[in-house]
Amino acid sequence: MYPKLSLHPAKRSYARGKLFWQCLNDANWLVYTSQAYDCIYEWLSREDRAFLNKELFRPMADFLSIENPQFFNRIHNHSTWGNAAVGMIGLVMEDEDLIERALYGLKNLKSNKISEDNDGGTIYSENQRAGFLAQIDEAFSPDGYYTEGPYYQRYAMYPFLIFAQALSNTSDLKIFEYRDGVLLKAVYALINLTNGSGEFFPINDAQKGMSFHAHSVVAAVDMAYYQSKDPSLLSIAKEQNTVTLDINGFTVARDIDNNKYEPYIKPSIMLTDGPNGNSGAIGILRSYNNEEETSLLMKYGKHGMGHGHFDKLSFCYYVGREEVIQDYGAARWVNIKQKDGGGYLNENKSWAKQTIAHNTVTIDEKSQFKASVKTADLFSPDSFFFSSDNQKVQVMSAVDENSYPGTRLHRTMILLNDSVFSKPLLIDLFNVQSDTAHKVDLPFYYLGQLLEVNFQLSDQKSQILGDDYGFQHLRVEAKGKSPENNSAQLSWIKSNKIYTLTSYSDPDDELLLTQIGAHDSLFNLRRDPGFMIRRNNSKNTSFVNTLESHGNYSPVNERPVNAYGKVDNITIIQNTQDYIATTIQLIDNSRWLIAISLKDNNKSITHKIDYRNEKISWQGPVLVKKFSK
Amino acid sequence: MYPKLSLHPAKRSYARGKLFWQCLNDANWLVYTSQAYDCIYEWLSREDRAFLNKELFRPMADFLSIENPQFFNRIHNHSTWGNAAVGMIGLVMEDEDLIERALYGLKNLKSNKISEDNDGGTIYSENQRAGFLAQIDEAFSPDGYYTEGPYYQRYAMYPFLIFAQALSNTSDLKIFEYRDGVLLKAVYALINLTNGSGEFFPINDAQKGMSFHAHSVVAAVDMAYYQSKDPSLLSIAKEQNTVTLDINGFTVARDIDNNKYEPYIKPSIMLTDGPNGNSGAIGILRSYNNEEETSLLMKYGKHGMGHGHFDKLSFCYYVGREEVIQDYGAARWVNIKQKDGGGYLNENKSWAKQTIAHNTVTIDEKSQFKASVKTADLFSPDSFFFSSDNQKVQVMSAVDENSYPGTRLHRTMILLNDSVFSKPLLIDLFNVQSDTAHKVDLPFYYLGQLLEVNFQLSDQKSQILGDDYGFQHLRVEAKGKSPENNSAQLSWIKSNKIYTLTSYSDPDDELLLTQIGAHDSLFNLRRDPGFMIRRNNSKNTSFVNTLESHGNYSPVNERPVNAYGKVDNITIIQNTQDYIATTIQLIDNSRWLIAISLKDNNKSITHKIDYRNEKISWQGPVLVKKFSK
Repeated sequence: MYPKLSLHPAKRSYARGKLFWQCLNDANWLVYTSQAYDCIYEWLSREDRAFLNKELFRPMADFLSIENPQFFNRIHNHSTWGNAAVGMIGLVMEDEDLIERALYGLKNLKSNKISEDNDGGTIYSENQRAGFLAQIDEAFSPDGYYTEGPYYQRYAMYPFLIFAQALSNTSDLKIFEYRDGVLLKAVYALINLTNGSGEFFPINDAQKGMSFHAHSVVAAVDMAYYQSKDPSLLSIAKEQNTVTLDINGFTVARDIDNNKYEPYIKPSIMLTDGPNGNSGAIGILRSYNNEEETSLLMKYGKHGMGHGHFDKLSFCYYVGREEVIQDYGAARWVNIKQKDGGGYLNENKSWAKQTIAHNTVTIDEKSQFKASVKTADLFSPDSFFFSSDNQKVQVMSAVDENSYPGTRLHRTMILLNDSVFSKPLLIDLFNVQSDTAHKVDLPFYYLGQLLEVNFQLSDQKSQILGDDYGFQHLRVEAKGKSPENNSAQLSWIKSNKIYTLTSYSDPDDELLLTQIGAHDSLFNLRRDPGFMIRRNNSKNTSFVNTLESHGNYSPVNERPVNAYGKVDNITIIQNTQDYIATTIQLIDNSRWLIAISLKDNNKSITHKIDYRNEKISWQGPVLVKKFSK
Repeated sequence: MYPKLSLHPAKRSYARGKLFWQCLNDANWLVYTSQAYDCIYEWLSREDRAFLNKELFRPMADFLSIENPQFFNRIHNHSTWGNAAVGMIGLVMEDEDLIERALYGLKNLKSNKISEDNDGGTIYSENQRAGFLAQIDEAFSPDGYYTEGPYYQRYAMYPFLIFAQALSNTSDLKIFEYRDGVLLKAVYALINLTNGSGEFFPINDAQKGMSFHAHSVVAAVDMAYYQSKDPSLLSIAKEQNTVTLDINGFTVARDIDNNKYEPYIKPSIMLTDGPNGNSGAIGILRSYNNEEETSLLMKYGKHGMGHGHFDKLSFCYYVGREEVIQDYGAARWVNIKQKDGGGYLNENKSWAKQTIAHNTVTIDEKSQFKASVKTADLFSPDSFFFSSDNQKVQVMSAVDENSYPGTRLHRTMILLNDSVFSKPLLIDLFNVQSDTAHKVDLPFYYLGQLLEVNFQLSDQKSQILGDDYGFQHLRVEAKGKSPENNSAQLSWIKSNKIYTLTSYSDPDDELLLTQIGAHDSLFNLRRDPGFMIRRNNSKNTSFVNTLESHGNYSPVNERPVNAYGKVDNITIIQNTQDYIATTIQLIDNSRWLIAISLKDNNKSITHKIDYRNEKISWQGPVLVKKFSK
C-alpha cells in the first residue's frame, strides 16, 4: 500500500512525508522499525518477508531517497536520518543497492532538482558528495564537533551511531575507526559541550534545558562505552541513571555494577570546526572549585548553516549550576502547540539569531554579515591562541575579519584563578579595529536582579532601542554615563548568589540597561535584562571587562556573605594596532597587568611594554602578571 | 560605663540604641546575654555580680524601658523584645521591679511622650495596656495569629517563648497556659502559615524565602515540643534538620532518634485576627494530591499596623513547591547594603503596600483606605463563610465594607477537587457592589512565561498605567478585549508546569497584560508580569475566574503533557444584590453551577434559583453542583 499512499496533507515541509508531515519523521520511524523488523526477520515466513519488502520497505526507502533527493542528499541532520533509515532497512533486507545508496548517496542527480530547505540552508555539499560517509566526513570536525552545534548534534548522533553499529555488526567497514575514530570523538565532544548541570550550551538554535539526559545521548554514551570501554563514560552513564535495553546498555549497567567507573572530568578544550578543522572553533575554559564547575564558552566557529546565529565571538558563562551570562538560545518552545505550533517563532529570526541578542559586539546597529546565512556560511573566525595548561591562567583568543568587512574583531577571554578570589575571575578584552569610525555596542545578558550600579541612572521609560536587526526588541529602561574612574560596575543577584561586572568605560560611552521584549505582544520572548556599553565613533577601541562571582545570601538567615567584589577599577594603558595593555586594580591595591599582542600569536616571540617606568617583557601573545601593593 | 555611653551615632531610628543603632538591637543583645549571664551568675563573685548589675544590666534595662517608652510600651514586635530583655535580666538578677515592669509595662506614662514609630504605626494600645502580658493578650488572636503576619511573627516568637520559658522555670505564672495556651497555638499558627516549601506566605512586609528553617522557628518548635510533646512537631523538627543546644533541642533530638515523630499535615484553617478574634481572619485552604500540597491563602484580617499592606481580600496561591499567583511581598533586601542599606526601599511604599500590587480589586485607581495606615488599622473585613470539612469542595468567603466607603466587596474562593482535574480547580468569585459607578481593576500576578491568550492583543509599547497608588510602577505591554464567549483565557508556563486562568469578561472590559517596574531606574522592583481585568462604570458587578494547574513539559524529552486546561467558558447567569450564580463549562460539556448567597450566610437556610427551567435549591450560602453532559 505504501506506494499508493499520498503525501501527508500538511504542506509546511520542504520534503513532505507520507506517514508523517515530513520525510524526517518517516525516516525516524524507519530507523527504529528496521531494528524491530530485523529481530523478527528470520522468524517471518518467506512470503511475508517478500511481501513486506516489496510493498512497504523498499518503496519507503526509495521514497526517502530517490523520490526526495532534497531530503536525502544533503549534509544535514535530516539526511543523516534518511541515510541511516535507508541503510538499516537495506542491511535487514540484505539489499546491497540500498546499502550503497545509504553510504554514498544518490548518483547522477540533476542538480536543478535541488532547492533550499525551510531553514535557508543550502542543499548539496560543496564537493557534490552525499551519503552516510560523506556526512561523517563533512558534518564533523576532526575533533568530533558537529557544525550545527550540540543541540542538533544530540539529535543527529543517534542515526550516526546506530547505523554505524549495524554496519560494524554486518560488514567489514571499520566504521568506528573511520576518520580516526571521529564518531566516538563526537560522543566526547557532546559531553564536553555541557555545563555544570549536564545541559548543552545553547548556542545556535537550541532549546535550553536539553541535556545529556536525553534518550539519544544515553544511547550514544552506551554505544561509545560498548565500543571503547572507557571507564570515565560510566560515570556519565551513572548520572544519566538509565541505559538502553540492548547489549550496549547491558554492558554499561553491568560494569557500573562492578564499580568500573572512573570520574569524567570535563576538560578545557578547543573543538575545531569544519571538516578539516580549519574553520575556527568552539573554545571552552573550565575551572573547578570545590567540585563546582565554572565554564566559559566562546564561539568562533562556523555559522552552523540554517540553525546558526550571527554570534561570532559571543560567549556564555556558567558558575556551578547557575547560568550567569546567558546565550538566549532559540525563540521556540519545541512541541508546545500554543507557541505557534511548537515550531520556530518569528522572533527566532527577528531576535534570537541577530547579533545584538548575543554577548558580542554589534557594529552600526547591524548584525554580522547583515544577517545573511549564505554569506555567514562562507567564513569563520580564526583561533588566535588557546592555552589551558596552566589552571591559574587559562586563555582563549580569536579574531574575526569577515563579519563586518573592513573591521577586525579580536576577543581574548581569560579565566584567572587566584587566592584572592573565591571563584575564578573572568577577564574579557575585546578589541575592535577599523579604518573608519563606527558605533559599537557590546551587551552582557546577565541573569538576575540588579543590585547596584556605580553610576547615575536616568529613567528612560522603556524607550525602544532601534528598528531592525533585533534592536526593535530591546527596551532601554535606564541610561547612564561612565563614572569618573572609567570603571562602570554593575552587580546583581540570582538564586542568592552575587556577581559583579566591572567595565572599562570611556567618558562618551552610553551605558544602557535594557530589557528584551519590545514589539512582542504575544510574549514570545523572555523579559530578560541586559547591560550594554555603546561606544560611538570608534576606529580602534578596546572593551575590557571583568566578571566576579563573589557573594551569596540566604533569605532564611538574611545574611549576605562577600556582598562586594574585589575589583576596584580598570585602566587601559595602551591601545594600539598591535597591543592592548590594561590593569585591573583590586580594592586591596594589588593589580593585574594584562597585555595582548594583537597581531603576533607566536608563542616564542618576546614582547615588551612600558609600565610605570619599567620595561615589562613577556613571551607569547598574552601577559598576565600580578603586582602586589 | 553603660549609663555614660552616648546614643549610637546613626539617627534613623525612632528609638536609638547605645550599643547598636536602635533599641531593638540592644534588646536582642540583652535577651541572649541574659541567658549567658544566668549560666555564670552563681559562679561569679558577689562583687562582680553587684558591679555588673549596677553598672551595666540595670542601667541597660532602664534605658530600654523608662528612657525609651516609645520603644518599650507598645504592642509591637520591638516592644516584645524590649519586654523580654528587661524581664529576663530581671529574672537573672532577681529584680522584682524589672520583672514587674516587663510583665505589665511602664506605669503613669505621660502619653504626650508617645509618638509615631518609623513605620507609621501608633504607639500605645487602645486600652492603654503595655508589657509582656498585654503583648500576649493583644498581639495574638485567640488562634495564635500575630497581626503583623508570619514574617514578623517568626521574628517575635523567640522573645515571647524564651521569656515564657524563663518565667515558667522561675515563677508560678503558668504562662504556657495563659490565655488558653495561646503561645503554643502561635507556634502552630506559624507552621500553618507556610507553603509547600515551608516558606511563610509573604503577606504584609515580608521578604520571600523566609521559612520554618529560620533559627527562631527552630527554637519555637523545640520549645513547643518540650512543652507539649506533640509528636507531629517532631516531623517539622526533622525537616528543619537542626535543634537548639538546650533541653528543648535535646528532647526533640532524642525523641526523633526514638522514632516518636508523626506526620504534621498542615490543615485548611481559618486563623482569626485581633485580640478577640473578631477582626476578620486569614483563610487558608489546602489540598493534597500525591503528597503535593496546594495552598490558597486569602487575607481578610486586620491591616497589620505599620508593616501592613492595603490588600484586603487579596490572595496568593501555591501548587506543590511552585508559587503560581504571587503576593509581591516587601520591596526590601534585608541586610543587603547595596539596596539602600538593606532597609525598606521607597518602592515598598510606592508599590508593594499599594492595593494594585495585590490580587484584589482596586477601585477608581486608588488604594484601599486611600493608603492611610491609621484608617486601615481601624477596620477589618468579616468572614462570611469558611468550610473545609468536605475535601472535594472547600470554600472561604469574606466581606469588606470599609476599604472603599460606600462599596461592598465580597470574595468567595473555592478549591474544588474532581477526578476530571489532576490538580484542584481554583474558583474565584468577586462581587463588587456600590450605589455609584466605579472603575474596578482586578489583577492576577501570575508567575511564568505567557504561552497563549484566546483574545486579540495589541502592542502598547510599555505605556505606563497611572500616576499614583502604585499604578505608576505598572507598564502595559499589551491590551485586548473580551472574546465572544465572554471567557478570556490566559495560559502560562513556569518551571515546566502549565497553568490556565479563565476569566469571565464583559464585552467592555479591558484586558491588560502588565509588567511591574516602571519608574524604577534603580531596579528595586522585580520585572514580574500581571494580567488585569479593568471594568469601567460598574455598580454591581462580579468577577468570576478559574485557575487550573494542568500540564507539564520536559525540555529533555520535549513532550508537553496535558498542555491544555479543561475549562471552556464561564457564564454569569445571575448577578443581583443577593445572589451570584455562574456556570463553568468544561470541554467535555459537563458543567459546574456555582451560586452564592451574598447576604445570608446562615448554614441552614435554603436558597433557590432558576437554572435551565429547573428550580435548583440548596442549603447554606454556597452551592457547588456538577451537571454531566
